[in-house]
Amino acid sequence: MKLFDYFRSGAAYRVRIALNLKGIPVDHASVHLRRGEQRGEAYLRLNPQGLVPALVTDGGDVLTQSLAIIHWLEARYPEPSLLPQEPLQRARVEAFVYAIVCDTHPVQNLKVLNKLRAMGHSEDEVTGWAAWVNAEGLGACEKLVAAQPGPFCFGDQPSLADVCLVPQLGNARRFKVDVSAFPRLLQAEAAAKAHPAFQAAAPEQQADFEA
Amino acid sequence: MKLFDYFRSGAAYRVRIALNLKGIPVDHASVHLRRGEQRGEAYLRLNPQGLVPALVTDGGDVLTQSLAIIHWLEARYPEPSLLPQEPLQRARVEAFVYAIVCDTHPVQNLKVLNKLRAMGHSEDEVTGWAAWVNAEGLGACEKLVAAQPGPFCFGDQPSLADVCLVPQLGNARRFKVDVSAFPRLLQAEAAAKAHPAFQAAAPEQQADFEA
Repeated sequence: MKLFDYFRSGAAYRVRIALNLKGIPVDHASVHLRRGEQRGEAYLRLNPQGLVPALVTDGGDVLTQSLAIIHWLEARYPEPSLLPQEPLQRARVEAFVYAIVCDTHPVQNLKVLNKLRAMGHSEDEVTGWAAWVNAEGLGACEKLVAAQPGPFCFGDQPSLADVCLVPQLGNARRFKVDVSAFPRLLQAEAAAKAHPAFQAAAPEQQADFEA
Repeated sequence: MKLFDYFRSGAAYRVRIALNLKGIPVDHASVHLRRGEQRGEAYLRLNPQGLVPALVTDGGDVLTQSLAIIHWLEARYPEPSLLPQEPLQRARVEAFVYAIVCDTHPVQNLKVLNKLRAMGHSEDEVTGWAAWVNAEGLGACEKLVAAQPGPFCFGDQPSLADVCLVPQLGNARRFKVDVSAFPRLLQAEAAAKAHPAFQAAAPEQQADFEA
């Protein structure tokens, strides 16, 4: 399989972590977002939405949207599972996941920030917007796991919540959010960062990394 | 069960459609978003994220985030299913769903539009932002179902794609998007709007509707 990827994309980072947790090797193709390669003709033929990641399966099917890809991986490679089987606990994990994947990440992605720039906002204002979105979303997440056992978000094994949390905390720091306000999230992140699957998926470990 | 709801919330509208498709009766409690009731102490005790919908189960558990609620409903009330069982087709439906639920809706919700107002943007600029987001997202969706059989988004039965599409097209019209650019989506919407489950979930059919 081949993952169309970019070292800094939070959505691609989620898929890299999920692949590593399940021990699935893939080839990587870098789509340079800052140079606009996601809007190039070749990539748009693959993913008309012009977003990374996209996963091309061994059968040649193209999967897009990080969560759709991860759910497909769950179905095809069920072990280790990233979501609880019990419906109520699964709904709790998913509420956390969607607080990041819907309410936080898309409101501070490159396209939205570029739109703010095009509307005349300064870099400080753009960073302030992204920091606001991250602080709101992570603040909600902190409450959602406050009563959950650690060290991961939901217990002693990583779940889809941790898969989504770690990239988002990376974004939050990049936008200068004071993440010390989220001690329970930092506990989960520390557990994740000690795990080889998360370590190998980190942006600075990717072939296309630029400092 | 009780659904904490607001007639105009696209996320709550999704859950109303899913409940109706599965034939599950619930009580409704209105949370008036424009008056800020979602940030009141009583509602924040229920859902610390301050968003609708929230579903309180007969067991007293509180579920939040529309997709987490709908997945829980799928597990508890599997018929009729809103997602294909075959993993690849399911991933296609989900890619469509996330193009709306992640990439479109949260970037044009009330909180984000109010943030733009607070940053000094005019009502025309705010509407322009929301129209841009909707046109981009629905344009992607149109391509994602172009080759799928109709009349619904993915075949002859409604799926989670239609559940998410109908509220979003309502938003797009409210923000003056020319939706005639999306003929395949309009075909799916017409099929949905002929279905009693979609009809009964419409904003104008809710007890808290205001013109």
